[in-house]
Amino acid sequence: MQAENFSHWMTCVQQEMELTLARLLPDAAHAPQTLHSAMRYSTLEGGKRARPLLVYAAGELCGASADNLARIAAAVELVHVYSLVHDDMPCMDDDVLRRGKATCHVAFDEATALLTGDALQTLAFDLLSQPMAGIEPATQLALVQTLARASGHAGMAGGQAIDLASVGLELSLPELEYMHLMKTGALIRAAVMLGAQAGTPLSSDELARLDHFAKCIGLAFQVVDDVLDVDADSQALGKTAGKDAANDKPTYVSLMGLARAREFARELSSDAFDALEPFAGKAARLRELGRYIVERSF
Amino acid sequence: MQAENFSHWMTCVQQEMELTLARLLPDAAHAPQTLHSAMRYSTLEGGKRARPLLVYAAGELCGASADNLARIAAAVELVHVYSLVHDDMPCMDDDVLRRGKATCHVAFDEATALLTGDALQTLAFDLLSQPMAGIEPATQLALVQTLARASGHAGMAGGQAIDLASVGLELSLPELEYMHLMKTGALIRAAVMLGAQAGTPLSSDELARLDHFAKCIGLAFQVVDDVLDVDADSQALGKTAGKDAANDKPTYVSLMGLARAREFARELSSDAFDALEPFAGKAARLRELGRYIVERSF
Repeated sequence: MQAENFSHWMTCVQQEMELTLARLLPDAAHAPQTLHSAMRYSTLEGGKRARPLLVYAAGELCGASADNLARIAAAVELVHVYSLVHDDMPCMDDDVLRRGKATCHVAFDEATALLTGDALQTLAFDLLSQPMAGIEPATQLALVQTLARASGHAGMAGGQAIDLASVGLELSLPELEYMHLMKTGALIRAAVMLGAQAGTPLSSDELARLDHFAKCIGLAFQVVDDVLDVDADSQALGKTAGKDAANDKPTYVSLMGLARAREFARELSSDAFDALEPFAGKAARLRELGRYIVERSF
Repeated sequence: MQAENFSHWMTCVQQEMELTLARLLPDAAHAPQTLHSAMRYSTLEGGKRARPLLVYAAGELCGASADNLARIAAAVELVHVYSLVHDDMPCMDDDVLRRGKATCHVAFDEATALLTGDALQTLAFDLLSQPMAGIEPATQLALVQTLARASGHAGMAGGQAIDLASVGLELSLPELEYMHLMKTGALIRAAVMLGAQAGTPLSSDELARLDHFAKCIGLAFQVVDDVLDVDADSQALGKTAGKDAANDKPTYVSLMGLARAREFARELSSDAFDALEPFAGKAARLRELGRYIVERSF
């Protein structure tokens, strides 16, 4: 019953996100048409919307309004999508398949993919800086700060740079963890913190607990990704499988082995759930979502 | 005497900008070192800092504080530099020389240039969303909005997309103007509007006049750029000369001829100065700067 509720909630959030993104992205009929089409193509009809789901689940915990959560979740998702578009380009991972579709530079061209990623990032900050009812401007500025810090040189982009530099190197486990904490962890933590700051103010202890939850789930998400990369075939994954091993990139599986990596993901998620304990029933969604992220088998 | 003052002021702002950017950019000694080095390499020791100068000149008009202007000007310059780094990449203009130095993807590599542009854009929004003394949070959110709108799909990035799509096409003069209003004009207008909103509030008529000034100067800047592209040699220009003609891109010179393009730049600047008339002496800096931008002969 609980599981059914969760699955229903998840579908509702995903549909709401799709509608919100479709509404907020520029119209493909307006010039520059190619750029607008590529922005929509790369963003719409794809992805599990893990980060938006985290925004909504954290937002439920503090009674944030649905309108504000939709806008915040869209901003976080746009940053994520921009990073995928650029990451797939020939000079980076050179990938042709993403979310079950041709990547942006394949469907359009490289120059368009470059501009599409750029414009999606800008749109994220555009959306997040538009006045939101019920959120103080000072709080909203802090939201913009949170997203910027998580996305830039000390967060996601920095993590990608470390990832680039680590190809073919022997990374230690702490080094691999540091890279993932920046590359994927920073934006996942930002998703939870943005949702948690959009409603009734939480105490600093509560925010720290949510951040720890997000940090553990973020790492678990990555460990699971590494497991799926060797485990699943491309069709189920919606992107090219076995890519990391082929690129000689260090992964949790290459450092720990498959069985230990699975176990590590479970340990991280148990650590994450411990952090949520004081929230009791208020964190039910976050708990279910954390479980879903770690146990996903798509 | 006036000219000497202006030249001194300009040097001071340029030096202040260099120090501010050097302080706000991430330390090249910290990981990820390559990304941080490339961000500093692309931003520091280069450029006339035309956009920061516009921020400062507009800020003087409304008594904005030097600290806030430094931060705002740095944010605008970072957006400009990010666009240059991406614009120079092989899939775009494929340029090897910029501001007298090897372009970022030549000095580093393409993947680093991609991430460098991405992280510079993020840093701009990071800087602009940090609390600024003496500016209301709601006003500051509006500044973030202004920068985002000017940089994204409906501004600079959109203009670049139109520019891409226009290679080899016969553009009319209005079409060329529309492209430039987005590609370079939007950020130049944003520079003036951001400076003008950082101090004592101006009336909507005053803001509209400043916007018209910036629009005309922005176009004049582009016309002069086209003139210099056929007129100057690469060394004096600090970038590859004759590039637009070689790329079969429409320019004011190709559409109007060299003499008429020069004259058009003068008409635009005269229109710009008319808009400043009611400000009398308060707009002295903006007037001098406008003259400098249009008459530059470097």
